[in-house]
Amino acid sequence: MPPACASGSLLQLRGMDRDELVALLSEARDAREPEPVHATHGPVALCFFEPSTRTRLSFEVAAQRLGLAVIALGDASSTSKGETIVDTCRTIEQMGIACLILRARPSGMAQVVARSLSCPVVNAGDGRHEHPTQGLIDCLAIAEGLGRDGFDLSGVRVLIVGDIVNSRVARSSAAGLATLGARVVCAGPPHLCPDALAAALGVEVARDFEAQLALADAVVMLRVQRERHGSSDEGSWGAAGGPDAYRLAWGLTRERMDLLQDHAVILHPGPVNRGVEIDPEVADAPRSLILRQVALGVQVRSAVLRRAVAPS
Amino acid sequence: MPPACASGSLLQLRGMDRDELVALLSEARDAREPEPVHATHGPVALCFFEPSTRTRLSFEVAAQRLGLAVIALGDASSTSKGETIVDTCRTIEQMGIACLILRARPSGMAQVVARSLSCPVVNAGDGRHEHPTQGLIDCLAIAEGLGRDGFDLSGVRVLIVGDIVNSRVARSSAAGLATLGARVVCAGPPHLCPDALAAALGVEVARDFEAQLALADAVVMLRVQRERHGSSDEGSWGAAGGPDAYRLAWGLTRERMDLLQDHAVILHPGPVNRGVEIDPEVADAPRSLILRQVALGVQVRSAVLRRAVAPS
Amino acid sequence: MPPACASGSLLQLRGMDRDELVALLSEARDAREPEPVHATHGPVALCFFEPSTRTRLSFEVAAQRLGLAVIALGDASSTSKGETIVDTCRTIEQMGIACLILRARPSGMAQVVARSLSCPVVNAGDGRHEHPTQGLIDCLAIAEGLGRDGFDLSGVRVLIVGDIVNSRVARSSAAGLATLGARVVCAGPPHLCPDALAAALGVEVARDFEAQLALADAVVMLRVQRERHGSSDEGSWGAAGGPDAYRLAWGLTRERMDLLQDHAVILHPGPVNRGVEIDPEVADAPRSLILRQVALGVQVRSAVLRRAVAPS
Repeated sequence: MPPACASGSLLQLRGMDRDELVALLSEARDAREPEPVHATHGPVALCFFEPSTRTRLSFEVAAQRLGLAVIALGDASSTSKGETIVDTCRTIEQMGIACLILRARPSGMAQVVARSLSCPVVNAGDGRHEHPTQGLIDCLAIAEGLGRDGFDLSGVRVLIVGDIVNSRVARSSAAGLATLGARVVCAGPPHLCPDALAAALGVEVARDFEAQLALADAVVMLRVQRERHGSSDEGSWGAAGGPDAYRLAWGLTRERMDLLQDHAVILHPGPVNRGVEIDPEVADAPRSLILRQVALGVQVRSAVLRRAVAPS
Repeated sequence: MPPACASGSLLQLRGMDRDELVALLSEARDAREPEPVHATHGPVALCFFEPSTRTRLSFEVAAQRLGLAVIALGDASSTSKGETIVDTCRTIEQMGIACLILRARPSGMAQVVARSLSCPVVNAGDGRHEHPTQGLIDCLAIAEGLGRDGFDLSGVRVLIVGDIVNSRVARSSAAGLATLGARVVCAGPPHLCPDALAAALGVEVARDFEAQLALADAVVMLRVQRERHGSSDEGSWGAAGGPDAYRLAWGLTRERMDLLQDHAVILHPGPVNRGVEIDPEVADAPRSLILRQVALGVQVRSAVLRRAVAPS
Repeated sequence: MPPACASGSLLQLRGMDRDELVALLSEARDAREPEPVHATHGPVALCFFEPSTRTRLSFEVAAQRLGLAVIALGDASSTSKGETIVDTCRTIEQMGIACLILRARPSGMAQVVARSLSCPVVNAGDGRHEHPTQGLIDCLAIAEGLGRDGFDLSGVRVLIVGDIVNSRVARSSAAGLATLGARVVCAGPPHLCPDALAAALGVEVARDFEAQLALADAVVMLRVQRERHGSSDEGSWGAAGGPDAYRLAWGLTRERMDLLQDHAVILHPGPVNRGVEIDPEVADAPRSLILRQVALGVQVRSAVLRRAVAPS
């Protein structure tokens, strides 16, 4: 964490040391019915400059469980009146908030905002940079799903599949998983998963999807961001073709699920495009942790918020 | 209630037995200042996939009065990212909610969702199917307005006027009122109130609007859904002509109000189009229960939510 | 306050007598950590028929600090279904609210609504009429910034600059400041600050911007409402030219800040257009009260809400 940011901030998983990461994951694992925070606090401010449903609600439930009030920007925020994101956040800080949860389109904006505020900032997704609470969920779900109670993932092989280059989830998960000792392999079409990621993220890049499935202990399927692709004509999907062609090449189909080892688990950050990157039968399979990730999401955010508003 | 749905769900009034209906209405009548629910609960989730103001706020106030926290989908929900309504609801259930309140466009969706979840589901309007809390409000308001304390409406004649075919309110009210013993007559232009409704809803269909007014103990005026009709040109209003022609043929004008019996009461689920289906003087007349329906709405939803989260 | 409105309403500062104004400001000054309101109340209803971020959140935080629940209209309110603002507000009142906070486009609508309801109404901005809590903030910030503890502003000269004619903030601030004894001077281009304002608002109108800066004890810079001007072509900005021309003629630039007296303070109701009506270095200068205004805003609204729901 850069020294200019308030203690209790969570901006990225990359660079977080292993002890801190394990402590945070342990607290999240134990946050099933968290105690309310006892000190008097202002509200938690949800500053979402991009639409979101599940992340916003997950933070909101986490705050409620800690007894914290919530205020939230509407979809039509002051930035439509020409105010900058930083000015909006500084304004909201002055209302007496306990911490600010930020989602914004520009990559790296969480850091920029955190340096401008005195209160803790939690990054809920900033462009293509990071989405650290989602990364914590993946770490927690994989450790739980594979029975690694102490969060030691050495020897574990995690395959992340799809649109890595646009995915802040992939960046956060890869960083967290690697810190815990896992071997992270990314797979996808070259325009969404270029070779250059290997150096940039410190992961392996593979193209032999089906061979990799047979080796993986956990598979993280990423969402095809259809809203960026427009309709299903080939051009807008780029080299991946339309949704059907994408499914054929990179979807986790029912047939491909059979290639997995017996113990291997399947993750997806949601929302799911059934029949595109993942088949309905796979999303609903017993080894799918998709719904479990949602439940763990509330626990992760409870732990992160407690750390933000009541640093120990 | 189909056995696959969680106890405490409320999906429709059609088929609810009379004892259950009377018990629910009695609890609603007594819910003026309800006791908070004592057990520990997750929040009530308002999953409105269609815009709504009054129904959403009414449920929200009802939840607050019971001491329940609320989370709500925004207008830009995950379904815009390609997720299905069922997947969104299953995701939100995983966050640890006490019950889910659903409004959705597809008719019958409340049942589909309820069968996919373990928590209780309350239908807040699903397409043209039902809007059961609004039906409960009409039953309660008519019983109160006519002094039928025990909710026995035998001998009571209720006239429902307008766009019956598109109205989930009409379906719920007709079902509930009939169960309580009332005689339900529907009136409106043939394209909005076809003869076939008689068999489908078990109501009578009449065209002699003014003669029916003279016979009715209660008149439920339905909203002309102007947002479906576009501007006021004749074509878009179909056989009803524009708003002025509609008012002339099927509006409850000041003159027509004089045809009513002295004790007869007037209802409207809101929001009102003054000067279209109802004249301003009628909406504001002493025998109009329109504002009373709103107050009773909070009591109805308090009773329904208590039943959902703390089934006796 | 007209006798038809509920006690505890706040519709405008114009006409409020000095003792009442000073009492309200004193309460706001002392509302840093207000006691919760003890009586049982329904929620405070935020009825914003125009988009807003900061005012809405400020009222929301104020309500939370008093222990009051909040309900809020969404952006897609019932008025899109043809219901009038008054009908929507009367409907919401029936849900059992403690008071209604209104923002609406028509000038004077707060009065119209207040006369139709039994509960107190707080005006959060009605067209070009008034925005009284923002006016209270300016009074409080100027008194604090200049060390006038008793809110006696005699001898104080306040310069309000910019789009006066469209500004409800200017109207409220000018009224409140004048009542406290300040001399209020307005400056701006003639189409935004016409001579006729002198008579209408009881202020002085000046065109010699830089000379006025040298005389002022406080300068209130108004936001250029860019969303009304469209893009930056000259036509849409009227005689003011585009944003650059506006800045040159009427912006508080870094150079112009040097004209101010040492003790003079700078205000802006926000959101700020940096580089248009105010330079970034000015907005962030030590004598800028912009962020302080936000903090005081929560205190002002706490005092106003307490007065509304628990009139002494």
